[in-house]
Amino acid sequence: MPIYKAPVEDTLFLLYDVLNFQRFGNLSGFADGTPELTAQILSEGGKLCEEVLAPLNQTGDAKGCARHEDGSVSTPPGFNAAHAAFAAGGWIGLAAPEEYGGQGLPYTLAMAMNEFASSANMAFAMYPGLTQGALAALLRHGSEEQKKLYAPNMAEGRWSGTMNLTEPQCGTDLGLLTTKARPREDGSYSITGQKIFISAGEHDLTENIIHLVLARIEGAPAGVKGISLFIVPKFLVGGDGALGARNGVSCGSIEEKMGIHGNATCVMNYDGAQGFLVGEANRGLNAMFVMMNEARLGVAVQGLALSEVAYQNAALYAKERLQGRALTGPKNPDGPADPIIVHPDVRRMLLEIKAFNEAARGLALAAALDSDIAHRSEDASARQTAEDRLGLLTPVLKGVFTDMGFENAVKAQQIFGGSGYIRETGMEQFVRDARIAMIYEGANGIQALDLVGRKLPRDGGRAIMAFFKETAELLAPLAADEATKPYAAPVQSALDDLQKATMWLMQNAMTKPDNAGAASYDYMHLLGRVALGAMWTRIAQAALETKAREPEQSARMDAKLLTARFYMERMLPETRLRLARITSGADTMMSFAEEMF
Amino acid sequence: MPIYKAPVEDTLFLLYDVLNFQRFGNLSGFADGTPELTAQILSEGGKLCEEVLAPLNQTGDAKGCARHEDGSVSTPPGFNAAHAAFAAGGWIGLAAPEEYGGQGLPYTLAMAMNEFASSANMAFAMYPGLTQGALAALLRHGSEEQKKLYAPNMAEGRWSGTMNLTEPQCGTDLGLLTTKARPREDGSYSITGQKIFISAGEHDLTENIIHLVLARIEGAPAGVKGISLFIVPKFLVGGDGALGARNGVSCGSIEEKMGIHGNATCVMNYDGAQGFLVGEANRGLNAMFVMMNEARLGVAVQGLALSEVAYQNAALYAKERLQGRALTGPKNPDGPADPIIVHPDVRRMLLEIKAFNEAARGLALAAALDSDIAHRSEDASARQTAEDRLGLLTPVLKGVFTDMGFENAVKAQQIFGGSGYIRETGMEQFVRDARIAMIYEGANGIQALDLVGRKLPRDGGRAIMAFFKETAELLAPLAADEATKPYAAPVQSALDDLQKATMWLMQNAMTKPDNAGAASYDYMHLLGRVALGAMWTRIAQAALETKAREPEQSARMDAKLLTARFYMERMLPETRLRLARITSGADTMMSFAEEMF
Repeated sequence: MPIYKAPVEDTLFLLYDVLNFQRFGNLSGFADGTPELTAQILSEGGKLCEEVLAPLNQTGDAKGCARHEDGSVSTPPGFNAAHAAFAAGGWIGLAAPEEYGGQGLPYTLAMAMNEFASSANMAFAMYPGLTQGALAALLRHGSEEQKKLYAPNMAEGRWSGTMNLTEPQCGTDLGLLTTKARPREDGSYSITGQKIFISAGEHDLTENIIHLVLARIEGAPAGVKGISLFIVPKFLVGGDGALGARNGVSCGSIEEKMGIHGNATCVMNYDGAQGFLVGEANRGLNAMFVMMNEARLGVAVQGLALSEVAYQNAALYAKERLQGRALTGPKNPDGPADPIIVHPDVRRMLLEIKAFNEAARGLALAAALDSDIAHRSEDASARQTAEDRLGLLTPVLKGVFTDMGFENAVKAQQIFGGSGYIRETGMEQFVRDARIAMIYEGANGIQALDLVGRKLPRDGGRAIMAFFKETAELLAPLAADEATKPYAAPVQSALDDLQKATMWLMQNAMTKPDNAGAASYDYMHLLGRVALGAMWTRIAQAALETKAREPEQSARMDAKLLTARFYMERMLPETRLRLARITSGADTMMSFAEEMF
Repeated sequence: MPIYKAPVEDTLFLLYDVLNFQRFGNLSGFADGTPELTAQILSEGGKLCEEVLAPLNQTGDAKGCARHEDGSVSTPPGFNAAHAAFAAGGWIGLAAPEEYGGQGLPYTLAMAMNEFASSANMAFAMYPGLTQGALAALLRHGSEEQKKLYAPNMAEGRWSGTMNLTEPQCGTDLGLLTTKARPREDGSYSITGQKIFISAGEHDLTENIIHLVLARIEGAPAGVKGISLFIVPKFLVGGDGALGARNGVSCGSIEEKMGIHGNATCVMNYDGAQGFLVGEANRGLNAMFVMMNEARLGVAVQGLALSEVAYQNAALYAKERLQGRALTGPKNPDGPADPIIVHPDVRRMLLEIKAFNEAARGLALAAALDSDIAHRSEDASARQTAEDRLGLLTPVLKGVFTDMGFENAVKAQQIFGGSGYIRETGMEQFVRDARIAMIYEGANGIQALDLVGRKLPRDGGRAIMAFFKETAELLAPLAADEATKPYAAPVQSALDDLQKATMWLMQNAMTKPDNAGAASYDYMHLLGRVALGAMWTRIAQAALETKAREPEQSARMDAKLLTARFYMERMLPETRLRLARITSGADTMMSFAEEMF
């Protein structure tokens, strides 16, 4: 069975030594956030993931979910008790306000816990994850009455949440959505239509399921401007909060998928189900975007999470598997062979994964901190800066982390050789599970288009210009210092590639939008490499400081410095390739005759 | 259900317009090789793959193989009849000499057919593929008596073959092999030990299974120099060829794997089974290498094959799936949305796959032709050139084609969005099946080491020097011609990167072998990119000539020219990145403390 150990120590290092988490005590929910309390929370959460969730991961994959004749769905053995433990620990409502049943703690800590839970058992973690997303949308856009009626039970995990967007004819293009909402006399709506690919659409983990459903009110405009958001509870809820009648929503079937078998992916049929409008009519997409943005960060972290757990297992295997001898002579002369970690190419694979994981964790925590600042800071300018950066980086993190997370799961599997292809080691499950993260919540190509088509030009390019400025300001002093120069100078050069690419887009994509489309994927990855590089520079700086301050940390900090160096030498040079691809433009691909594909 | 159409037309173009297959009529087996006959053979083979093998691919995955209590193994429904049809068509012995039951045709044609069969049903194609590999080893190293006894039944598909190398403690490192061979009085051996991961180790497709087994004769030296090769038939064979008693070899269990469920991956137990020495004692690895080299090319082609079939399905889907609008305005204004092929990023993914497939097919056919020349030419110098090139390129093709084949299967799946993650579309099966090709027959890291550690330095670097010379000579006139320059000049620059990388290795790896290990994987991919680029230059040249000669082929040839251009603009620039990674050396990764991984 695969192992898993939550990276609590690394998370604390990133929070306090790199991101200066302690400086944000003025934000609501942060006042109690001493390093000691944070350590305690993360250790407790990590333990739950290691001891309760991880042991259910392989069985969850093997047993999967089952739909029964009455339309009910059962989750794999143990999921129910695990969900109860997860809810009882207060983890679902960790970042929700206390008045709505939450713990009122920073979203940053919820993000850390999401990583641990997704590493331990991604299919399981999606259930509370979707509840968190639905809860966030409700808290932002629901009426006070709706919040009181639904939020506490969701935050406390008695009820769960889902998001219902996709229909057979409409995935990316929500304008094609046909699910109908007919006004009823009591002010509610009657919802009819079919939704597909609904994660956690039906299950046996909670007493009720609160579906957030996009539908078109009769007579509403066509396209995305006629879409509204509705609450459709599985069981109707009385004014007193008591569960009432079963609503007209049911699971028609569950999908057979490549992975995440422990999560029920449902076809949901709405047959005149009673729904309650959330926010304004025809502004549903707006409200849903709150949930989607949070979900996108959550999915980004799934990429990191699977990369991390796959890494841990591959590193252990590489130290234990005896096969062949080091190129420089036996390192384990008394054994029948050397452990395969003596081989440079095995180290290359491990370090490629590690060099992603630690910086990606830093970026994920930084993004969550930006979300906390955007929602909780009293400083309007700080809020705007944080919001701009979060908007810019959310598609980048989603696209890059899930692409690299999947590649890393594949690399980790590769280290196992033939055993990696066998179910028993669990490595192939990580690959299958990681694969979905590149697809759902907007396929990665859509993230790239969102970045290039919307996030870059927004507000006259304010967010990207701020990113350039802030990164340049970070790097300049560090590149001038001999100790930090090896970690800062390469990123300056990569930043230069990013700026050239951005300039090229400004000059070539306005008049010819296909150039933006053709460049989008490479641009997303280019930005991602620069962001990871800048994070490594910050980590290296913190590692040097920590090492000077706490000599007993030298070995750990040296490992970070070497990983940073590895990133600069072997991973960052990719920015040049991305730039070359971007500036080659769209002409060749667009000239290709459709019938010749 | 996924579609599949064998690329017969493209194969013929590559054979006759690019590789000048007609020039090799002087080789034995080639005399009848007119384009018309070749077309007829490939069409017939393609049809068998399309109509018989492809329809069994998804059911084969879903049903898998089953081991019964008596140790027998049944293959998925339909496999037996399909194997009979495959054998009856003469496809197994296509390239085997007529005197041993084969068709005596070029291995080049067998290679083309292997691609088609692996696209249609990889798990199935492995059964005859292993028989072909075992047959080749027997024909090369077996005694005349052994050849007569076993070869015809194998070539005709009544019996099948396997290769038994791996043991629990020994995969890559065959020196650790412990399976024992005790001499018997009759000159045969008694084989005892356990082999794992034996593809097609037991099944119900043939009357007998001829296992080729590596074992150590009692008293033989330790390490790889004490390994011998044995024939261990499932049923002993009388001098008259009649099947006799069941031998002491049995399938202990079959593995649960990520993919290729239609192929039985067996734990094989040898309990004093009667075995017959092949070739010289203690020279078994040598004999097995014949099988392994052929198998490596076969596995390389599996990478191509899955990339091809995944491409075909993704291209079809991209033309049919209506979602969103083109960035430049509606292209299908009367429909609810445009087909997603209007999007540059979708075209990017399709062209990345296509630009690999067509050149990879050219390289695979060229490698097979080299094998034919190496084995059949009467010109010693031509034999040596072909053998050198084949030795150099075999690990490159295996490593690069299977890595890119897998990546391409993932890309093709991505084009399907959420539907790609659902079993029904078959796209996720291509990904799961393609994954094994990166692992078996020597994991790709081992291919890279074989290339850098053995193939490069062999004979004073004769093979790589010849590759440089021949590529430079191909490019020079084409780079001087305006029409072909766009396809030749970029490859010249990539070749320059390869030469720099080779020079760096010569200067830095002799004294420090870890530098070779650290560079190996990138070097393999760098060489692969150059080889694919050189093939695209040849294809472009042929396309220009064909277009001038046959104007009705213009549209098809223009597609090839655009694909070549796409390759040069977007894929070839990777050589610079690979060079940067190679020259960064091993220091950083080797300084990393083992306990810090």
